[in-house]
Amino acid sequence: MNISGWGEMALIKHLAEQLETSTQVLKGIGDDTAVLPSPEGYDILFTTDMMVENVHFSRQFGSLYQAGKKVIAVNASDIAAMGGIPGYAVISAAFPEHLEMQDVDNLYRGIKEMAAEYGIDVVGGDTVKARDIIINAALTGKVKHGNAVYRDGAREGDLLYVTGSLGKSAAGLYACQYLAGESNNAAAECARKYYLEPRARVEAGMRLGEAGMVTSMNDVSDGLASEITEICSASNKGCRLNLNEIPAAPEVREIASCAGKDFIDWALYGGEDFELIFSTYSSCREQVDKLFAEIDLPAACIGEILPPGEGIYGITPGGKKEYIQPGGYEHFSQPGDGS
Amino acid sequence: MNISGWGEMALIKHLAEQLETSTQVLKGIGDDTAVLPSPEGYDILFTTDMMVENVHFSRQFGSLYQAGKKVIAVNASDIAAMGGIPGYAVISAAFPEHLEMQDVDNLYRGIKEMAAEYGIDVVGGDTVKARDIIINAALTGKVKHGNAVYRDGAREGDLLYVTGSLGKSAAGLYACQYLAGESNNAAAECARKYYLEPRARVEAGMRLGEAGMVTSMNDVSDGLASEITEICSASNKGCRLNLNEIPAAPEVREIASCAGKDFIDWALYGGEDFELIFSTYSSCREQVDKLFAEIDLPAACIGEILPPGEGIYGITPGGKKEYIQPGGYEHFSQPGDGS
Repeated sequence: MNISGWGEMALIKHLAEQLETSTQVLKGIGDDTAVLPSPEGYDILFTTDMMVENVHFSRQFGSLYQAGKKVIAVNASDIAAMGGIPGYAVISAAFPEHLEMQDVDNLYRGIKEMAAEYGIDVVGGDTVKARDIIINAALTGKVKHGNAVYRDGAREGDLLYVTGSLGKSAAGLYACQYLAGESNNAAAECARKYYLEPRARVEAGMRLGEAGMVTSMNDVSDGLASEITEICSASNKGCRLNLNEIPAAPEVREIASCAGKDFIDWALYGGEDFELIFSTYSSCREQVDKLFAEIDLPAACIGEILPPGEGIYGITPGGKKEYIQPGGYEHFSQPGDGS
Repeated sequence: MNISGWGEMALIKHLAEQLETSTQVLKGIGDDTAVLPSPEGYDILFTTDMMVENVHFSRQFGSLYQAGKKVIAVNASDIAAMGGIPGYAVISAAFPEHLEMQDVDNLYRGIKEMAAEYGIDVVGGDTVKARDIIINAALTGKVKHGNAVYRDGAREGDLLYVTGSLGKSAAGLYACQYLAGESNNAAAECARKYYLEPRARVEAGMRLGEAGMVTSMNDVSDGLASEITEICSASNKGCRLNLNEIPAAPEVREIASCAGKDFIDWALYGGEDFELIFSTYSSCREQVDKLFAEIDLPAACIGEILPPGEGIYGITPGGKKEYIQPGGYEHFSQPGDGS
């Protein structure tokens, strides 16, 4: 059987079974990042993400400066999803021989700028040659001992929150693919930037980790449907999503409407929004709202954790119950779409 | 100007200038690994290496099981070259869609076996799709605070040692390329294994780091000429290499002789031997010999550190003085040869 017959989740599960880790590892393969013991009151987080030209980014749509920013953001997002603080990064990059040095410099300028924004030190790396541009970052982080937020802690009755807004990256990809000529289309311009320069919710993740009121958390890298399925599956719970409450930027609604799409599909299945989805005690609603007001970031309560027998479903704006399939972007089981 | 006009060293120097790190980083870009502060009596090491199919490994010559072993070995070798102990690894891998799952499993089996040998926990990773197979490992390590061995500490009069033997990987590549049909050629078989399954000198590096008698160290990843130039340049020193003392396995001498090559050229310019080259106080000769006897690994004294004005030269077996050019394998400035 070849690898395209496997979904990414199944592949990771399979590989994790092969690579059992020693007992001192607090969390190995199977969450946003690994969690490693450290004797100084903090646990160490460790994650990596690889980006491939024409799979994860395209020079047809964006610049290498933007790809550099993105590789830091996607890794920082994994640290944020554990409630941690990003620390040190090493960057490997493969370049075709005839790439202009100016492009290389632009890539590293993006890396440097985004790293500075998140307080990350880029301390090393490797450069090699290849047919395609490949960028890999590995990032460490830290979190107060015992405060790392896993996927598996959601409890019945917990409220489900999501930061910022969703469907941004899918809208941006659509704008790159179909609205490229419309240079005076402000919504398309805005959406393209969402897609090409995603932000990680580093401060929100850190604050949620410190506050200790979050029972489970993921970053929305593969679409809300996929992330909520991961949380419910790891926690052995069901959930109800009020689809009407899913936050979307006005630009995303506009692009979806002009594309004849439902933005909720983009939120559920689009991926690469890098928002945080988390569950919290139902008694913490006020505290959560206060925390997000303090960091000036919107966060919306979009549902509730249910007993496992309830399954994972959404309530449509019309009041209909719709069961949600994991879906989301999978590298191997679906044709690549450049996202 | 495109990237092929830059040597790898020049490129790294250029990128390091762009990516200045914060003052708390003990050693950033420009040594085998970064060195990061940790309040618990240890400094943290952090390194990464990327391997690209048909640049760093080829399924024509070896298996993905061997490529898996190699990606761990090359990273562990960087930790060893700092005098450190390897710790945790994250692995990113890019696979073409039609790769057989059996090949993927073989890759991770190699990773797992080599990681176990060096006491490394593989704690996470990423899998993506690409046209070529790309394997990236990032590896942490630790070293007692202040004991990390840099390139820049060599002093006049220090002795230069190298572990094991050199020219192995170049001999192995030659055997892969030109002696593939000779299945009963034991030397070729042995050399191929040197090339396809290099070992890192993890125990030696760790012991040298603990012993505190090493003034500078590199792993021989790009050929002795390149490594000694890095040490001398970082330390602002010259050196004399007694070329006659460079150790070679009998199989390597045999392949070199049958290829009509001088194995010393392979040792100086071949690369990927992953031995350790280090300088030590001239008073430590007995202690060094004792340490290597204890771990049952040969180590040869091959030269001496000189004042900078002396340059970097070798004494040929015939007693002639020959200045050494950095050379070594460079990814961008030389045509790829599969090494």
